[in-house]
Amino acid sequence: MGEGPRLIAALDNPRAQLGPLAGSLRDVVVGFKVGMPVLVAKGIGALRELRDAAGDSLIIADLKLADIGDVMVRTAEVLKGYVDVVIAHSFVGHAGALDKLKEYLDREGLKLALVTSMSHEGSYEFYDRELISVESLVARLRPWGLVAPATRPWIVRRLRDDLGSEFRILAPGIGTQGAVPGSALCAGADYEIVGRSIVEATNPRVAAEELLRAQEEAIKRCRA
Amino acid sequence: MGEGPRLIAALDNPRAQLGPLAGSLRDVVVGFKVGMPVLVAKGIGALRELRDAAGDSLIIADLKLADIGDVMVRTAEVLKGYVDVVIAHSFVGHAGALDKLKEYLDREGLKLALVTSMSHEGSYEFYDRELISVESLVARLRPWGLVAPATRPWIVRRLRDDLGSEFRILAPGIGTQGAVPGSALCAGADYEIVGRSIVEATNPRVAAEELLRAQEEAIKRCRA
Repeated sequence: MGEGPRLIAALDNPRAQLGPLAGSLRDVVVGFKVGMPVLVAKGIGALRELRDAAGDSLIIADLKLADIGDVMVRTAEVLKGYVDVVIAHSFVGHAGALDKLKEYLDREGLKLALVTSMSHEGSYEFYDRELISVESLVARLRPWGLVAPATRPWIVRRLRDDLGSEFRILAPGIGTQGAVPGSALCAGADYEIVGRSIVEATNPRVAAEELLRAQEEAIKRCRA
Repeated sequence: MGEGPRLIAALDNPRAQLGPLAGSLRDVVVGFKVGMPVLVAKGIGALRELRDAAGDSLIIADLKLADIGDVMVRTAEVLKGYVDVVIAHSFVGHAGALDKLKEYLDREGLKLALVTSMSHEGSYEFYDRELISVESLVARLRPWGLVAPATRPWIVRRLRDDLGSEFRILAPGIGTQGAVPGSALCAGADYEIVGRSIVEATNPRVAAEELLRAQEEAIKRCRA
């Protein structure tokens, strides 16, 4: 990837004004991730507001889709026109689930990002035990991107080493969840996703700019 | 469980009028399950309409929550007051995920139903390989209910045999997805969840009544 912004802002607060927030951040971050609390509270209206304010920034629907294919496709139909990337869980598998979703998203020119592992401790209990199978699924399905935890950089590193440079790796877990800005980039991620450290800051734009600087310094150090 | 209705209607069509539909079905079914396509399209307004029309029927938010604990709790906060049951995925694990969600739901008097296996073929690829771990999680977390596929009655039977009668088992997959009405009840489920066969029928209430009769006949046969 190039040297453009490597920060995605997670807008996960149902009380936040998405339009103004996105407007103030759009030239600092590469995109916006909107999570389920916001989408359920505000419905598709929230995405309409965000799409208008976000300009060319990527909009990522982080509903972590994890249903049978038909239901995931119907959800994607609702999101179409407002988002660029749809996040789904690897765990639902290919047959009758991600195969159908991927086919639909390809047809509509939308991107799929697959959760491969998660940032909380419970990810060890199921997800991380299945990492080899998740990698096989990724190699077969060839999604646009992978979601992998900044809190466990060795998983980011392993995905990059095993799967090559074809996939964008998006890493949540920076800031409040514990990972240091730039650490996932150094491990091989393309983008770091930051939520509370930006949206709960007194000045979200200043917070995002500070994060960008911290990323740049970290990259300089890890490449030195 | 008693001998009351054992049918849950899945209202998964974003174009359906939830209020009138629920009003016509409320004395035939035990509850309503609302899926993600509807909730994302209509937002919380859809649940308000449903709550008003559904009377004492159970309302089940089928967002198949599968995120870190904080995000699932924030989603549940949005749902509170409109739904009785929240469905989440087992595979996100206990620590930092379902532990937090369960604690919140208990405090708010809401019920948790855990997905243990799914009705599509891809459930074999990850979920069903982890069934022993899923059962351990259930025994530890003690949710109100389990979601298990009517399309694989041996999984329903196994959950009932292994985990006892403490948990309600809710079985989707009846009708369009292939399982015959009553088959999951005979395998040990408490409720069968039916979507398209009801909501896409010319007369949903008549369709639901026919399904109830088919359930009763199946139960008579399997208990004979």
